[in-house]
This record gives sequence, structure tokens and C-alpha cells, in this order.
Amino acid sequence: MSRRIRLGMVGGGQGAFIGAVHRIASRLDDKYELVAGAFSSDPEKSKASAAELHIAVDRAYGSYQEMAEAEAKRADKIDAVAIVTPNHLHYPQAKLFLEKGFHVICDKPLTTNVQDAEDLVALVKKSGLIFGLTHNYTGYPMVRQAREMVAAGDLGQIRLVQVEYPQDWMVTAVEKTGHRGAEWRTDPKKSGAGALGDIGSHAFNIASFVSGLTLSELAADVSSMVEGRVVDDNVQVLLRFKGGAKGSLWASQVATGHGNALRLRVFGDKASLFWEQEYPNDLHYNILGQPPRLVVRNGAGSLPVAAHASRVPGGHPEGYLEGFTQIYTDLAEQITAKLEGRAPKPEALLVPTVEHGLDGMRFIHACLESGEKNAGWVTF
Amino acid sequence: MSRRIRLGMVGGGQGAFIGAVHRIASRLDDKYELVAGAFSSDPEKSKASAAELHIAVDRAYGSYQEMAEAEAKRADKIDAVAIVTPNHLHYPQAKLFLEKGFHVICDKPLTTNVQDAEDLVALVKKSGLIFGLTHNYTGYPMVRQAREMVAAGDLGQIRLVQVEYPQDWMVTAVEKTGHRGAEWRTDPKKSGAGALGDIGSHAFNIASFVSGLTLSELAADVSSMVEGRVVDDNVQVLLRFKGGAKGSLWASQVATGHGNALRLRVFGDKASLFWEQEYPNDLHYNILGQPPRLVVRNGAGSLPVAAHASRVPGGHPEGYLEGFTQIYTDLAEQITAKLEGRAPKPEALLVPTVEHGLDGMRFIHACLESGEKNAGWVTF
Amino acid sequence: MSRRIRLGMVGGGQGAFIGAVHRIASRLDDKYELVAGAFSSDPEKSKASAAELHIAVDRAYGSYQEMAEAEAKRADKIDAVAIVTPNHLHYPQAKLFLEKGFHVICDKPLTTNVQDAEDLVALVKKSGLIFGLTHNYTGYPMVRQAREMVAAGDLGQIRLVQVEYPQDWMVTAVEKTGHRGAEWRTDPKKSGAGALGDIGSHAFNIASFVSGLTLSELAADVSSMVEGRVVDDNVQVLLRFKGGAKGSLWASQVATGHGNALRLRVFGDKASLFWEQEYPNDLHYNILGQPPRLVVRNGAGSLPVAAHASRVPGGHPEGYLEGFTQIYTDLAEQITAKLEGRAPKPEALLVPTVEHGLDGMRFIHACLESGEKNAGWVTF
Amino acid sequence: MSRRIRLGMVGGGQGAFIGAVHRIASRLDDKYELVAGAFSSDPEKSKASAAELHIAVDRAYGSYQEMAEAEAKRADKIDAVAIVTPNHLHYPQAKLFLEKGFHVICDKPLTTNVQDAEDLVALVKKSGLIFGLTHNYTGYPMVRQAREMVAAGDLGQIRLVQVEYPQDWMVTAVEKTGHRGAEWRTDPKKSGAGALGDIGSHAFNIASFVSGLTLSELAADVSSMVEGRVVDDNVQVLLRFKGGAKGSLWASQVATGHGNALRLRVFGDKASLFWEQEYPNDLHYNILGQPPRLVVRNGAGSLPVAAHASRVPGGHPEGYLEGFTQIYTDLAEQITAKLEGRAPKPEALLVPTVEHGLDGMRFIHACLESGEKNAGWVTF
Repeated sequence: MSRRIRLGMVGGGQGAFIGAVHRIASRLDDKYELVAGAFSSDPEKSKASAAELHIAVDRAYGSYQEMAEAEAKRADKIDAVAIVTPNHLHYPQAKLFLEKGFHVICDKPLTTNVQDAEDLVALVKKSGLIFGLTHNYTGYPMVRQAREMVAAGDLGQIRLVQVEYPQDWMVTAVEKTGHRGAEWRTDPKKSGAGALGDIGSHAFNIASFVSGLTLSELAADVSSMVEGRVVDDNVQVLLRFKGGAKGSLWASQVATGHGNALRLRVFGDKASLFWEQEYPNDLHYNILGQPPRLVVRNGAGSLPVAAHASRVPGGHPEGYLEGFTQIYTDLAEQITAKLEGRAPKPEALLVPTVEHGLDGMRFIHACLESGEKNAGWVTF
Repeated sequence: MSRRIRLGMVGGGQGAFIGAVHRIASRLDDKYELVAGAFSSDPEKSKASAAELHIAVDRAYGSYQEMAEAEAKRADKIDAVAIVTPNHLHYPQAKLFLEKGFHVICDKPLTTNVQDAEDLVALVKKSGLIFGLTHNYTGYPMVRQAREMVAAGDLGQIRLVQVEYPQDWMVTAVEKTGHRGAEWRTDPKKSGAGALGDIGSHAFNIASFVSGLTLSELAADVSSMVEGRVVDDNVQVLLRFKGGAKGSLWASQVATGHGNALRLRVFGDKASLFWEQEYPNDLHYNILGQPPRLVVRNGAGSLPVAAHASRVPGGHPEGYLEGFTQIYTDLAEQITAKLEGRAPKPEALLVPTVEHGLDGMRFIHACLESGEKNAGWVTF
Repeated sequence: MSRRIRLGMVGGGQGAFIGAVHRIASRLDDKYELVAGAFSSDPEKSKASAAELHIAVDRAYGSYQEMAEAEAKRADKIDAVAIVTPNHLHYPQAKLFLEKGFHVICDKPLTTNVQDAEDLVALVKKSGLIFGLTHNYTGYPMVRQAREMVAAGDLGQIRLVQVEYPQDWMVTAVEKTGHRGAEWRTDPKKSGAGALGDIGSHAFNIASFVSGLTLSELAADVSSMVEGRVVDDNVQVLLRFKGGAKGSLWASQVATGHGNALRLRVFGDKASLFWEQEYPNDLHYNILGQPPRLVVRNGAGSLPVAAHASRVPGGHPEGYLEGFTQIYTDLAEQITAKLEGRAPKPEALLVPTVEHGLDGMRFIHACLESGEKNAGWVTF
Repeated sequence: MSRRIRLGMVGGGQGAFIGAVHRIASRLDDKYELVAGAFSSDPEKSKASAAELHIAVDRAYGSYQEMAEAEAKRADKIDAVAIVTPNHLHYPQAKLFLEKGFHVICDKPLTTNVQDAEDLVALVKKSGLIFGLTHNYTGYPMVRQAREMVAAGDLGQIRLVQVEYPQDWMVTAVEKTGHRGAEWRTDPKKSGAGALGDIGSHAFNIASFVSGLTLSELAADVSSMVEGRVVDDNVQVLLRFKGGAKGSLWASQVATGHGNALRLRVFGDKASLFWEQEYPNDLHYNILGQPPRLVVRNGAGSLPVAAHASRVPGGHPEGYLEGFTQIYTDLAEQITAKLEGRAPKPEALLVPTVEHGLDGMRFIHACLESGEKNAGWVTF
């Protein structure tokens, strides 16, 4: 196809962090053009944002409902919509755009409860549309390489998965200081959960993605460490996987000194892997009885699966935005293939789906349930 | 200004590394649209590249001369041209586009000799046009912060500047294996110099940029370590700066085990800084008598000058492409200000200019001269 | 006192790892002379070891009982005995030497069960003798500094303690290959527990030592990952401390790729600390809202408590043996003070005692009990 | 031999840093007993030091001359003397003890000028005695492994040697604050040179030791950066080796932020090695076209030559004192073999000798000469 994919956006108006990230991610590899948007629930703000984004006046919408209606009738209608609103809006928005026949790219977590997630799974299945969930850390080249190495048996039988995601931006009651992102994230009606939804779902997703393991049960000690906070801000989880592997997951937003320190270790009986988000070009690969190796993205030992998700040679670091971009770029291939009536290239199929979103909601729910049972075991 | 800057490109056809980088850099912050190009000296190839890049057929040119002529006559002509060809072509191409009244964004090194560089300096001065040189490492946020900290006196009096830029991609005679980038880089007629031009000029530029020092003299041991190679691939340089500071510069393309390991250390009598390109979000700041500190981009201790050159919060790594983008984005502000007849924002003025390009050519030339004199001192 | 302390040793014959470590630790600061020993249960081997160690023939004993009897009668009898035998022998040996009036330096874990540990606590109390337990990691200068910083309130209120101790030397069934150390460590009668006793007890000890927190309850998922192994080799523990802090402890001997990677993180609401045994001279100190700092032993920010436990300046790394030595050196001061009838210097009082050994046994026992209850909570 | 070597010491009285280090180094592996000493030029101080060190009164000497005389006459005379005085005293003291027939262990640099060094070389040769020079960094296990890997051809042909030794303890005029070690080190009559003698000689020694290369010529920019200082405190040296390899050496005591950061990189056409003194258990091994490897002392990939110089398993860090000890321990084997009339074990022969001391003096002298010639080339 010679044209770019026409993208609309819901949410992501002036000042929003994740909306701007999605826009860069759509643009970096030149696979999309942003042509329409309902950037704010306030129509004036939505239009002001649209103008800044070089969007035509008639496609700057005052609400997502208006956008879905109007775009559905256009000859040059959008191909796909990016949903970048707070968690509780994902479900109605995704539902509507799916019903109108649009492909959907949705921020995580998928919804605020399991039932809505199950509904979306069914809806996507029925519609035949593409639904990509931006668990963006799976877009990092070395995360994909780690997944492939595990799948290829390079690590032997997997015994242990240790994943952690500590941050420190909520060590104090930042939600009471006018910080909008903190406000809705600590309001259970809008977020569904605290650290669990915001970062725990990422940690679970990446651990599952790389290890290829299926969770069988978990026990979660769910805490709110800051006075007055009504959602979880620190969660310690014991994991048991089908087949006998074990692990632990720690997600915290009160871990003083940590920025965005998602770290994953997977241990097999032949080798182990270690990756950390803050230094994402490096994959540590330790074969039992051999010196530890550092595999640098597109350096020696880097695999084609990493090259596919890369733009520049080894030694030229890529980062968060490039990883996020890869999600968009692979979805572009999936959408284009659909438009062209062909099968997508297999390397573009690693993007998290609505099913992964449902898994994430089940994980969050199971943790909350375990937490209410004094960290008792909950079957997944 | 509500519109994007219209950009043309010379060079950067299919398979070229740096052309693709320039295009991403122009696109990432959404300040440019690429509308024209002479992507190859082969007209067919140029047009094939243009088609892939969604460029209108009538603006896919067969030569840079044709492009300059044709664009100059259009109402919607390009605002600026990006020159991403081998070194020996920079001069004639930049000259022509300047003469036609276009702003120029040129890859480094500026030319292949000092005379051409001086001509370009004069031409830019006369024209009043913007001329940006993509010494892209100065676009990294923490490099800019380092510069500002030195300028603010945080390091005290600067005594030492240690800069190195080791790579290993030319440890073997890769230029004899059909590697196009290696071929022209090792052909003195096309490159002007070997490691000195390719990476030594970057090292010198960043050392000057951060330290604020002016070189007074140098002594360079210039080597070709690989049999049959006719350009330098390893250079050790002793540096003496005006005011008494000293330093050393090492550029090597035969440093087995190093990818793209540009590293800069600046030592004052109060504090020192250390930065390395492969982990660019980190700036190591060591105050005499205090524990070493790690300043992370947009983390604690990060300055507004770094935030200006950033897109995402601390802990979300940015990389090579974002640093390169910053050069483009700041040039967009400079060009837009020119088009709007206003002064540019001061934070957009850190981009290397044609004068820095001339400095670089003088540095390369002085090193080669010193090398011919058995590493004797050459006044800068 | 002008003389060195006269030391005897039980265990530690030819080929034993920890015995040689204890001897170096006793010698490095020149506070002890090794004058007697029952180095092996085989009298011939014991004497051969003694000869190599320059010990007089008449003080090379064939059994610990013989040694205790004979030494008790000598005018120049030993002041203290070092017990470096497998775990199940600690109790009878320590008991006998205490009863004979000797100070005791005992390897960890204290015993193989809680009852024996309680007996030793009572016996030590009654005897008035010094009893040091070689939880040697508390001898590291920066571990002691971490403890002091927590106690001084530098971290604010402690919320989280994350400790892990992964190794990989038991990834395969090494106990079936003739490895003596592995044999007794995997025989529950001799070891009492697997990874829990060997390294989990260290992890618990250092976490308690630094954080100053008292455990209130724990839930432990206790695993044997290698076929045929009858003791635990991987343990994940959720920790709850009095006062509300939480944490997790992971001890594993099947963590492929890890050597001896004891790591401790303590998070308060003002700052956090991170220390790892494999790079023991570095203490990472992160104050909320400030750049992370690296405090190097005897470098800037290093405290007198660290200097007390050091021999050489910052930048000259000390290691495992020096940390172990500090336990011995501080015990020398305690023993000397006792011999001289004065109070010991307060800085020498950080050595783990028989009470810490009892705490360790309770921890091991609680983990095993929790493990049997499917990782249910056990009150400590 | 069943007995320990009897050691005497010249210098190293109360408060001296390096004397205490030598004593620990002699004691750690239990190969020596310190039985005599002239610890200070002040007889009272010498005797006070001796008493603290458990040395018999009649062997606490008031001068090194007295000691040499008296010991030579004893039946139980010392086997060897350790000389740990300021540089200018090494020559007369070593000379005297050699003449009296004692083996000598001497601190570095060997002397303060080349002539004295040549005299000592001749004297040692004539005497047939053991002369060990404590370039202690060659005692580190991974430095020895690096040497062996180079010698075995693992790196291919060596092209480049980059060595640096930055410190910051002399950033200010510390020699004017009553710091004794700084006083004599900045007095050219006592030290012979500044940073060159104190640390430059170490850097040169380790570079030669590991690379196996012979220097052919050098050009040195020799600086005194602190006002009023009359010796060098910063030296940048270009190196050319026989056979065509090149390199650079940087020694600085004004490098703010560096503790004791001796770092060596050796690059061949097949692989490279990197080692740094502050993390001495790690050897970075980069094979061209393969992922970088981390070889940990006594971990996977660690060679017998490293095990010979180690005491504890991988993951249990050793440090500066253990490296220093290895020099003593290997000299013990050399001396014992001499006493027993047999050949020493070959693995004990890596200790720097008086010839290496002469090389070091030639290096220092050549740098000073080059410095006086405005960093002109000086043949080595």
C-alpha cells in the first residue's frame, strides 16, 4: 500500500503525557498520519489541541461519540483509532469504535474490570478487527529477543521468573497536589487499581511475554503505604506457573530512588536472562558454566527479531519512544495487511492483543482478591 | 506559524544509513514535512526512493542541481534542504542551495578541506540563511546540561578534557568486502580523512561544545593499523587549550570490543563530569569531597536545558534518534523565526553552525599536519 | 593487652573452604594466633592439618572433646575456639567449649533447630562468655554504614526491605558428584535446611541488621527445584515487620548466572539504600528528589563506622576476607576487654551474637513451617 | 620448609599507610613472621612501633644500618627485608641489605634516578638474591589472567594499549596542609617525580606486564596544575611500542572525582581486554564479533593463573590487600626455594623484579626528558 494509515485519537489533549507518546510512536516510522481526534471531553480544548496538531478543523471533534459517528460516514475515514484516556473510558470508547468498524489501538490496562475485558474480547473476535494494546515494553528489541531465546530453548527449562517494577513518584501524597495523572490513578472508579493497574499490569505482561509461561496461581500482599491513599501503591506477589516454575513480582510506586525501573530476570536450568528498562539496549545472557555475556541491540549476538524492531546500529541507543513505536509499526503492518486482504508478516504479530488485556485484568483482579484474603492463594 | 517546515533532501536513498536517520529526526517532533528529494545520483533510484517516502512524483529529482533549480521556482518550494551525501559532495551541494536561497542542514564533517569550509562560512554569512551542522551528539540533553554546568562554573576552573571515541567496525579491511559506507570513508578523495573525519570531528566538537575551551595547539599520532588502508583509523591527540587546560582525544575504528563509545570527561578544580553516548541519559557529576552523583535526564538535578531537549520523563530512556531530532527541532525554530521575522527562542541556538564545521575542518587538518610531522605540535 | 588472643579451631581441615577463611580472618589484623586445633574427626588428618598450620604437635587434637579437656588444663590455654564444622555439630561443640569456659566464635547457622539454639542462648547468658556468630556480611564497612544511616533516620520511616541472595552452584545435582560441601548441605540431618540455612539465614540476618526492624510474620514458598534433592534450594518469602513495613526475601541456589549475589535494598519515605556483596565497597544512597549518590568506602560521605571496619583508603577495594576479618577483630576487642576487666569499645559491639543465631533459627523454622502450610502466614 | 620466612621491615612506623599494607600482605597467607624492624628514623618511635607489632625489644632497631649489622650476626637472622620508606631512601637501604646478604622486598618506584636503579640491578645480579618490587597491581588475579591471555594469543596481534591512572587527592595543595605523604611526594629530592613516580610508574608497569610489549619511544606532556607545586601532577603520554603497537598513558592526581582509578585496556585484532582496579574481580573480555563477556575471578572462564593468586571462590570479592599479598606470597615461594636449594614453582615467578624497577625509572626519566622538550619524542 502506498499510503499511510489514517489515524484518529481519543484523549491526549494538551498537557497529557501518554497521548503525546502515542503520537510520536505513530509518526516515528512514518506509517501513520494523524487526521482526526477527540482530544478532550471539553470541545474547545479538543479543537485547540487539534489545531496545534495540524488537524483539519472539521475533524476536530468535541466528543468521541461525535467522532465515531462522523468518521464512519467519510470516504476518507480513519483506518484506526488510538484510545489514550483514563482507564475507565477505555471500555465504552473501544466498544463504540469497534462497533463502527474501526481498528483500535488502546492504552493499557484494557479496562477497569474483568467483565468489560471479556466483552471486548468477544467483540473483537466477532468484528474481525485489529485490536492492539500498548503494553509498550514488549516493543523493545531486546525484550523480543529474550522471548525468542526462551522459546528456542536457550535457557533450558524455565524455573524462575523474577520481575519488578519500582518507581518513586508516589512516595508522597502527590495526588493531593493537583497532579492530574496522580488524581485519576488514585481514584479507584477511574483506575480500577493503583500500582497494580498502572505498572503491575506491565510487569505481568512482560513476564508472561518473555517466559511464555501461564500463571496458575498467585498470592499477593497488597499495600497502601501513603496515608490517605485508597488504592494500592506497593504489591508483592508470589507466582506459581503451570509446569512448576515459580516467581515473584514486585510493583511499587513508593520505592524511593527508583525512576521507572522495570526489570525482568528469567532463569532456566541452562541459562538466564536479565533486562532492565532503563538500559534497554542491553540484554544480559548468562549460560551456566560460561562467562556472562552482554548482548547489545544490533551488536554481536543480537537476533533478527531485534533487528526487526530497531532503526539504528548497535552502539546507537534506542529508547522508550522507539519501543513504543514498534507497537504502532507492527500494528500498521497488521492493519495494512487487512486492508490489502493478505496475511501480515509474521514478525509483526508480537503486539499484545485484547486477550493479553484480559489476562492483565484477571491478574489485577486476582491480586486484589488475594490481598483481601490476607495474601491467600488465588487460582488464576 | 501553523505549518510544518517543507524539507528537501539530497542523498539518503535506499539503503543509506544516515539519510534515514535525518528523516526520522525531521519527523519525530512533527516540525517538518519531507516534500522533495534528490536521493541518488542515479535518477531511477532517486525516484524509487521518493515513491517509498510518499513524495510527489514531480518533486523526485534526478540530481541535486535539478532539484535546486526546480524548487527555487515553486510557490510551495522547500524551506530547507538536508544534505546527507558523502563528505566531498557537501561543499558543492551546500553552496548551490545557499545560492538559491535555501536554509541548509548538512551532515558532518562540513567539507573535505579547510578552504571549502571557509568559503561556506563566508557564503552563509553573506546569505543570512540558517546553516545547521548535524554534530548530533550535541543534541543529547545531558550533553547540553554538561555544557551549561561548565559555563555556570559548577566545575570551577577547567583543567582537563579527556574525550575518546572508539569503535571496532573497521578492525578488519571491511572496505574490501563491498561495504559501501566503508568504501567511501576509506577513499581520501571522498572522505578527506578516515577516523578523524568520521568520528574524530564529533569528539572534538563535543569536547569544545561542553568545555567551552578554545584549542591552542595539538600533537597527533595518526595511524593506519589495517594493512592496505590509506586513511587513518586510529588517532591519539594531545590537546592544549587557551588558558592552560590540557587534554587528550582518542578516535579509533580499530578498537576491538567498542561499538560507538563516545565518552567525554571534563575535570575542573571543583567538580568533574562524565558522559558516555551508549548510556546517554546518565550524567555523572562528581563534586570534590562529595559522593559522586548520577543525574538522570529529567530526574533529580536535571536542568531546564535538558528538559528542553527531552520528550519523556526520567526513567524513560531517550537515545540517538531523539538527540539527532533535537538538532532538527531547534533548527525548525530558527528557520520558523526567520520566516516569521522574529528572534528565535534562545534555547534553540545550541545547534552547531557552519563556523563549528570550519573548526572541525581545522582540527582534522591540524591533526593530519601533525601526523606528517611525527606528531609534532601544530598551532590551531 | 600486649599479646595476641590464643585461638583454637574445631573443623577446617585440609580442603575445607570456610576453615581457611576463618584462619585468614583471625590473622589479617594480627589479633590472634592459632595455637591449637581439632581439624578433622580423623585424628591423622587433624594432625596433618595442624602441622601445615605451624601448630605444635601436642596441641593437634584428635577430637574436639579431647581438645576441650586438654586445653582447659593448660596454663597457656586457648582464649577462644572457632567452630567451623557442619551445622549439626555446632551445638554439641559450642556447648562443650562454653562449659569449659572458652569464648566461642561459631559459624552460621547457629544450630539445626530452635531448641538447641535456645539452649545455647541460655548457656551463653549463664556463662558470661563471648559468643560471636560469623554472619560475616555484617562485617562489611558499608553494611555497617547502611545500618547506622537507617538508625540515624537518614532514610525516614522504613517502608520496604528487599533482600535477595541468589547463587547458581546447585543448578544441577552437584551433591551427587562427590562435592563434600554439597553433600552435607543437602542432607537435612546435617544441615537442618538447604538454601534457607546456607544463605537464607545470611539474607535475613543482614536485612534485620541494617533495617533495625523486627519481623512479625512471614509467608514462604519453599521449593526444591532439582530432581532428587530433599532440601530446599529456592525460597521466596513475603515479610511483614512490626510497625507496618513490608518486604521480600529470595534465597536461591538454582539461580543460573548468579555467583554470590547477596543484595539488600532498604526504602524509607525520605531515602533508600542499595548494597550488593559482589561490589561491597559501594553503597548507593538515593535521597528523594536528589540525584542518586555513590558512597564509596572511605570516600566522600563514608562514615567513621565504616572507617573502623576498614584498612585502606577509598579506591583501594576491600572484600570478603576483610569483612570476615572485621568480625574476628571486633571479637578480639570484646575478648580482650573481658580479659582485662574493662568495657569493650562500643564500635566493636556490632558482631552478631548467639541471640541473632536464635533469630536465624526461628526464621528458618518459620519458613519451613510456612512452606508446609502452602506458604501460609506464620507468626514470628 | 616447615617454617615461616623471617621478615624485617625498614620504615612503616606508626601512621604510615604503606608499611601497614606490607605487613598485612606478609601475614595474610601466613608465609612470613615479622621479627625485626627499623620503623622510623627516630629510634624512640621505631621502638614504640615495634612494641605494638609484638616484636622483641632487641630487634627493634634505631636505624636501618644498625638493623643490617645486628641481624647479619644473628643465628635466627631475618631472611628478607621489606623496604617501605620514601623513594630516595630505597637505594641506600636496598644496597646495604643486599650487601649483607638479605633478600629484599622494596616498595616502588625503585629509586629516584636511573643510575641508582642500574646499580641495584647489577648488585642483585651479582648477589644472587631475590629482589621483589611491589608493583602490587600485578598481584591481582585478573591482571595475571589478562597477561596470560595476551601471551596465549587470545587477543591476536596487539595494536593498542590504553592505560590511565587518575586520582583526585591532590586537586588542592594538600602538601601545604601538613599531610606527610603529600609532603615528601611533592619534594623532588625525596620523590624524584610527582604523579609519574607515585602512580605513572604503576600504570607503565601494568601496561607492560599485561601487554608483553616493549616501549620504543614516548612523548609526554608533563604538567603541574596546582599553583606552587614543583612536581608533575598530570601527565599525558603517547606511547609507541616495538612492533608497531601504539598507546597512551594518563596519570593524574588532579582528576577530580577519581579515587584510585587505574584502568587498562589492551586491544588486539581478535579481541580486547578491560580491567579496572576499583572493581578488580572483573575482567571484561571482548572477542571481535561476539558479545562482550565478563570473566569473574574464579568464575567461569577464569584461568588457573588467577586461581593461583586467589583465596576464595568467585562471587566472594578479593581486593587490594589480597593482590598485594600475592606479591609477598610468591616471593615467599621464591625465597623458600632459594633456602631449600630448589627451583621455585613457575607460577610464583610473576613478581616484578629489580629489572622492572629499572624499566620504571627509565620510563619516568624519559617522560621528564620529553616534558622538558615540549613533549618531543624520546627513545626508550
